[in-house]
Amino acid sequence: MQIAEPLLVAIEELSKLPGIGKKTAQRLALHILKNDNDRVDSLIKSIKDLKTKLRFCSRCFNLSEEELCEICKSSKRDISLVCVVEEASDVIAIEKTHEFNGLYHVIGGVLSPLTGVTPDSLKIKELLKRFENENIREVILALNPDTEGETTSLYIAKLIKPLGISVTRIARGLPIGGDLEFADEATIGRAMLNRISI
Amino acid sequence: MQIAEPLLVAIEELSKLPGIGKKTAQRLALHILKNDNDRVDSLIKSIKDLKTKLRFCSRCFNLSEEELCEICKSSKRDISLVCVVEEASDVIAIEKTHEFNGLYHVIGGVLSPLTGVTPDSLKIKELLKRFENENIREVILALNPDTEGETTSLYIAKLIKPLGISVTRIARGLPIGGDLEFADEATIGRAMLNRISI
Repeated sequence: MQIAEPLLVAIEELSKLPGIGKKTAQRLALHILKNDNDRVDSLIKSIKDLKTKLRFCSRCFNLSEEELCEICKSSKRDISLVCVVEEASDVIAIEKTHEFNGLYHVIGGVLSPLTGVTPDSLKIKELLKRFENENIREVILALNPDTEGETTSLYIAKLIKPLGISVTRIARGLPIGGDLEFADEATIGRAMLNRISI
Repeated sequence: MQIAEPLLVAIEELSKLPGIGKKTAQRLALHILKNDNDRVDSLIKSIKDLKTKLRFCSRCFNLSEEELCEICKSSKRDISLVCVVEEASDVIAIEKTHEFNGLYHVIGGVLSPLTGVTPDSLKIKELLKRFENENIREVILALNPDTEGETTSLYIAKLIKPLGISVTRIARGLPIGGDLEFADEATIGRAMLNRISI
């Protein structure tokens, strides 16, 4: 097969991205090839800027352009409320709901002894340090509802509770628009257990 | 919502790629952010090289790093056979089969009066010119089996036949591994019509 070298390299590089296989990578590469130089330049610039202009907020480890992120800098947020999430993408997901007005703390993953993720490789120490300097009333744990997420939640809760700070976890239950018939037993079971009076 | 500007811009740029929606673009951007600088640099370089190092072969309009593409330059190909395809990606697809040993001609699309693609915007003139300089015996039309592809095939065949050159078209039929039960009527009909003796 005689594929030109630069195309092969670009396919190789693009297919390293998550969810992008060789076929998709080839389609992307050929699409980029057909684009104007201007459009390709702005794509390249945006990727470059990602690495050069963004860093982690020194307080909550959310993505930020400056020392403190927009959320930590805002005077409109409830600073007595901290929501603990795994990744910066979770901050975006929660912000989209407009249901939360507190601050965040991105721990950067979940505990997973098998893959070598210990408490020290997460930003848990940094979370505990915030309780010394900030007047935090409640910590909401919003980790993913899987085994590692649950374990990490329990681990963090155990560390925080002795400090006299209220610890909550976001609710598990049927997703809005979901169908009882197609939900799994664990989800329905949790939804029954966590029923609320109306 | 408080998403950092560089991230927003990268999501916007990545979601312009085909088949990449906002959600996928966000996942890609956050993945790139977590990568080492070295890996991001090689991704950027590969995209840049696509535009700077590749051009179109002056003979067959396949992608090439030099004036003539690897296939046109090769002394091992049957130069009396030319396969006409829509896009450079089709050359890659056919080369992967190892069933074709002739040359190619990439016309760059199909006739589509509605979207303004006329014979002049395709490399059809350039194909006809090749008959003057090259000793071509057979032209194989390998355009996509849809209405526009069929129309374009007929258009090209009509131009070539008077020159005394044999014109063929790749077969339509059931795809290998396909299931008769789930094939559409048009495909089964074509497969019946084009049956061959065994």
